Amino acid sequence: MAVRVAVAGASGYAGGEVLRLLLAHPRAEIGALTGNSNAGGRLGALQPHLLPLADRVLEPTGPEALAGHDVVFLALPHGQSAAVAEQLGDEVLIIDCGADFRLEDAGEWERFYGSPHAGTWPYGLPELPGARAALEGSKRVAVPGCYPTAVSLALFPAYAAGLVEPEAVIVAASGTSGAGKAPKPHLLGSEVMGAMSPYGVGGGHRHTPEMIQNLSAVAGEPVSVSFTPTLAPMPRGILATCSAKARPGVTAEAVRAAYEKALQDEPFVHLLPEGQWPSTAAVYGSNAALIQVAHDPAAGRVIAISAIDNLTKGTAGGAVQSMNVALGLPEGLGLPTTGIAP
Amino acid sequence: MAVRVAVAGASGYAGGEVLRLLLAHPRAEIGALTGNSNAGGRLGALQPHLLPLADRVLEPTGPEALAGHDVVFLALPHGQSAAVAEQLGDEVLIIDCGADFRLEDAGEWERFYGSPHAGTWPYGLPELPGARAALEGSKRVAVPGCYPTAVSLALFPAYAAGLVEPEAVIVAASGTSGAGKAPKPHLLGSEVMGAMSPYGVGGGHRHTPEMIQNLSAVAGEPVSVSFTPTLAPMPRGILATCSAKARPGVTAEAVRAAYEKALQDEPFVHLLPEGQWPSTAAVYGSNAALIQVAHDPAAGRVIAISAIDNLTKGTAGGAVQSMNVALGLPEGLGLPTTGIAP
Amino acid sequence: MAVRVAVAGASGYAGGEVLRLLLAHPRAEIGALTGNSNAGGRLGALQPHLLPLADRVLEPTGPEALAGHDVVFLALPHGQSAAVAEQLGDEVLIIDCGADFRLEDAGEWERFYGSPHAGTWPYGLPELPGARAALEGSKRVAVPGCYPTAVSLALFPAYAAGLVEPEAVIVAASGTSGAGKAPKPHLLGSEVMGAMSPYGVGGGHRHTPEMIQNLSAVAGEPVSVSFTPTLAPMPRGILATCSAKARPGVTAEAVRAAYEKALQDEPFVHLLPEGQWPSTAAVYGSNAALIQVAHDPAAGRVIAISAIDNLTKGTAGGAVQSMNVALGLPEGLGLPTTGIAP
Amino acid sequence: MAVRVAVAGASGYAGGEVLRLLLAHPRAEIGALTGNSNAGGRLGALQPHLLPLADRVLEPTGPEALAGHDVVFLALPHGQSAAVAEQLGDEVLIIDCGADFRLEDAGEWERFYGSPHAGTWPYGLPELPGARAALEGSKRVAVPGCYPTAVSLALFPAYAAGLVEPEAVIVAASGTSGAGKAPKPHLLGSEVMGAMSPYGVGGGHRHTPEMIQNLSAVAGEPVSVSFTPTLAPMPRGILATCSAKARPGVTAEAVRAAYEKALQDEPFVHLLPEGQWPSTAAVYGSNAALIQVAHDPAAGRVIAISAIDNLTKGTAGGAVQSMNVALGLPEGLGLPTTGIAP
Repeated sequence: MAVRVAVAGASGYAGGEVLRLLLAHPRAEIGALTGNSNAGGRLGALQPHLLPLADRVLEPTGPEALAGHDVVFLALPHGQSAAVAEQLGDEVLIIDCGADFRLEDAGEWERFYGSPHAGTWPYGLPELPGARAALEGSKRVAVPGCYPTAVSLALFPAYAAGLVEPEAVIVAASGTSGAGKAPKPHLLGSEVMGAMSPYGVGGGHRHTPEMIQNLSAVAGEPVSVSFTPTLAPMPRGILATCSAKARPGVTAEAVRAAYEKALQDEPFVHLLPEGQWPSTAAVYGSNAALIQVAHDPAAGRVIAISAIDNLTKGTAGGAVQSMNVALGLPEGLGLPTTGIAP
Repeated sequence: MAVRVAVAGASGYAGGEVLRLLLAHPRAEIGALTGNSNAGGRLGALQPHLLPLADRVLEPTGPEALAGHDVVFLALPHGQSAAVAEQLGDEVLIIDCGADFRLEDAGEWERFYGSPHAGTWPYGLPELPGARAALEGSKRVAVPGCYPTAVSLALFPAYAAGLVEPEAVIVAASGTSGAGKAPKPHLLGSEVMGAMSPYGVGGGHRHTPEMIQNLSAVAGEPVSVSFTPTLAPMPRGILATCSAKARPGVTAEAVRAAYEKALQDEPFVHLLPEGQWPSTAAVYGSNAALIQVAHDPAAGRVIAISAIDNLTKGTAGGAVQSMNVALGLPEGLGLPTTGIAP
Repeated sequence: MAVRVAVAGASGYAGGEVLRLLLAHPRAEIGALTGNSNAGGRLGALQPHLLPLADRVLEPTGPEALAGHDVVFLALPHGQSAAVAEQLGDEVLIIDCGADFRLEDAGEWERFYGSPHAGTWPYGLPELPGARAALEGSKRVAVPGCYPTAVSLALFPAYAAGLVEPEAVIVAASGTSGAGKAPKPHLLGSEVMGAMSPYGVGGGHRHTPEMIQNLSAVAGEPVSVSFTPTLAPMPRGILATCSAKARPGVTAEAVRAAYEKALQDEPFVHLLPEGQWPSTAAVYGSNAALIQVAHDPAAGRVIAISAIDNLTKGTAGGAVQSMNVALGLPEGLGLPTTGIAP
Repeated sequence: MAVRVAVAGASGYAGGEVLRLLLAHPRAEIGALTGNSNAGGRLGALQPHLLPLADRVLEPTGPEALAGHDVVFLALPHGQSAAVAEQLGDEVLIIDCGADFRLEDAGEWERFYGSPHAGTWPYGLPELPGARAALEGSKRVAVPGCYPTAVSLALFPAYAAGLVEPEAVIVAASGTSGAGKAPKPHLLGSEVMGAMSPYGVGGGHRHTPEMIQNLSAVAGEPVSVSFTPTLAPMPRGILATCSAKARPGVTAEAVRAAYEKALQDEPFVHLLPEGQWPSTAAVYGSNAALIQVAHDPAAGRVIAISAIDNLTKGTAGGAVQSMNVALGLPEGLGLPTTGIAP
């Protein structure tokens, strides 16, 4: 039976990627598409790559358009999801691609987002311990941030196995689509081509408390995170280089074994063979996360690196994967593990 | 019933793209994968984006590996297809992504390729007049070149309707994957990023006689082609800007009407609404060709522009589309018209 | 003796490039820098690559700031130059990087720009016949558009020598800086990376009448121009592929000889050796224009291709070159013919 | 009086950049240019951006060509410099852009480079404590590696002031020119555009011992380095994100003050104002290094980030700067602190 799906925020990058994936999903039937400033616009002009939906017209975001669906994806600016969700009732599965319901700690939410905390929903990263079970049958899903997805997948096996100290150092490079479609001077093509540049250095990025939440839960103790995001001259992709001090006695073999054990049954998280390192180019448009890990005995650190597509596994793919789990469908239904290269 | 498919040349860009598409094709069962210098290599190392095939190992190209399949795709360097095809017998459907069997004129072949002409096979551009019928049931397909695909789709409606003079002027920009995976200094990332550069100027590019063949057949008279290819700083995509002098009395309305008529039933060739122009970004990984056409009364010319993905519609997608036609399957089976953007 | 120079519009791409070149100019002393919305801003934040000027602060554009200089460069949006120029008096050398004073035909100006024609100033492309003499001692200079610079340099030798018919077909690819620094969605890095896309197709681009003006003057008869600009995924550079039908009897030797003769004494326009083609990568940041020409006997056309940096020779470099000529300084003073590569 | 300069390895990226800078150096007179496999080639074909040298022809690398100069730059593959240097005598200033003479510890050299240690020359990073004095009057200079340049400039103020623990964690992104001009499949434009990928993870990169050497000397105790280099989709630039645990009691103010003090007199190393972060785009073609530093109290770390052009300050610019110091010329002579942007 078809699952009828609406997408709020269909003109943005996250909404467009949700639609790209739903077009290939054998059970999804694409219903209402909504926008705010783009309401009334033809999708063919707004998202010309979604050719099968070219003649669709965006409706204004609100219950008129969004009611009557089995699933509603919210791909809205931060802070807008709660109001829309309230209007849709308890029976519809709402999958929020925004940040509003990710954090458990209201104080951290307010400190980083500057607005009242809306609540906490089951977290759409099924690979984390306990997360899959919490998603099954849920009517609400908070899709993780793109950076926390990449970082949590890279580091959770190390923390789950107690291999490393609770102080993680993370430097991640993201493609520009992570910054969204709103035009800003520093995101112009002229500015970003040829440029690697950091931002939110020193603990200021909003994804930091989400990483701390995830890693601390796995570690069973507070984990501090030094997180430096950088903007890379590519449209998509995150490469997260994560490391932490190895605990005494930890060996390369133990590290490898822990990662193999943690990831062996995951359909989308793939530990590469030894000697091969992840590249964002290999996951372009794919829901796969590629992982590799090394032990540097001279520096005394474990280095785990992940590559994901920030819009697929990092946003819309994770959202559809969570939808599958919540609805009791096969978790991988309609989700590619094949990227586009070169 | 599954169609068992082998791919010769699976480590290159064309072969990799054939595999990417076959992985999503509901009837294809991927059989042998072969290579030459890469025989013995793991596909996971050679094509890391093809994660579901990561553990496959390439066999040497030859009848030992390739026999026993329903379909064999040849993605080999020019000049090698005939010998392989001969060994495989008449009953297997052979789809040659190379140039060997595209040209009808042996003299032109020899002039441009410098080797004896191997013959002519049905031409895998179903959209050209008569081509679809010739492909149905055929056991041999010559997949068009990427540039001739883009150019022929842009201009055939104008020539079919007699709107323009038989002198076409074409400037096309191609992504670097069109030049293949063999490492050459001028194809290094350091060299191509930031660079637009022409090559084969003045009639020297091997795709020129193929364009002349296609357009002349449609026009019913010899069409001359001035073709300038340029290398663009992007991995994929062709933007072909094609123009010819308008015949006396031709109007913008007549041009639009001719294109609408010629393209209205095509599943993969899409005439954009007036005012919207094709971008390679909208067909990244898609088998669609986007077309727009204009009449410039001051210059007295009709300008037709197409955007395709050189590896999808321009090579592997056209190949799979032709396979579908040859086998009597629905023409669009397993082929995306959705691109990946941004 | 130092030449005291002010730059109006110092926060944009053209203004920034003027400053980059002036910093290396042995006679220029950089005076006032002005902006509109950016007035009050630190140049170090607005143009972080201009490190020696990092502590300069932009003043509001107007006579208060701009008076008292020997030279004023105007790098303003179209339509604003006349008012500023009027306030500065006749004795100051005003070099307008905008379009306002380029066209001779008021009707064409109004048709393409939709505002009253401000007048016509000596045209800052010294390489065109007669242009250098008109610039010497002038107190006013209209800097050419970037596309007309590339196209006129590529084609004027052919028209000057009467080699080709008066119907030019031009397809040019430009880096994104040609579209300026104002943030628009289609200019986002996420949109332009991986994208080749045309715009202003069919005679609509504002640089078309300027090309017609230049080529017609050289040809001594009206030349029609079919011009298709395309946006390429690179920050800088123009590659202009220009062609026209060869006149009867024209040979490759005659073409070569005409270009050699026309360009042999030019310090910035370089005809490449036969067999080598221009690349935008070779003129990155350079004031050189690289030219190559071919005769395609089968298509009966002469193809001339030029590569320039749109911000250097195409805007700011041409402006400084014109300043040198107007002031009686050595034409090449302070201007690089060395690009940055790779 | 002119300084007569030869460049061995003039067809590669480092040699080409040395020549680009020497062309703008008021005292340099460019003498012999040599190559190995490219000997006999025209520089205009090998380095088309060096237009003023287009007609120069490469001679074979050896004493025949290189003798009789005041300065010889060696831009050769690792392991070849010692033999060439020996043939040139003690009176010529030899500046080695390769690795051969950088390391003091023969064991570390042999472990990382697998060949006998050639010796140690004065180290061409004048900004390090004591380095400038050692370069003055020297006839031999070992130019630092590009990564060690970026990392040492970012971290030496912190170690000099005793602000951080002796365990540095570094993740750096480099443009592709850092990998040289030899064509390899993974460096093809098709592969690198859209790709961020790590390499040499876990302590394997050859620049690691050089960083350890520099930082340990400044710190006065052994500093361990966890170094992860990544390849970024841009031709030039290094962004180095470096961090270490803050020592007890260290404050943001103390960190800022230490960096201001350490860098205030440096002509090429620029501490950005608070709130502004370095971007590789701002140093494209410039010899400047941009630095910013932050204290993250939650994570307990000091994060220092530097941006350089790997070919300019990271190789050829550092080499020319060292030449200036060694010859007693003004240190900044002929070296740009202005980048090219956008």
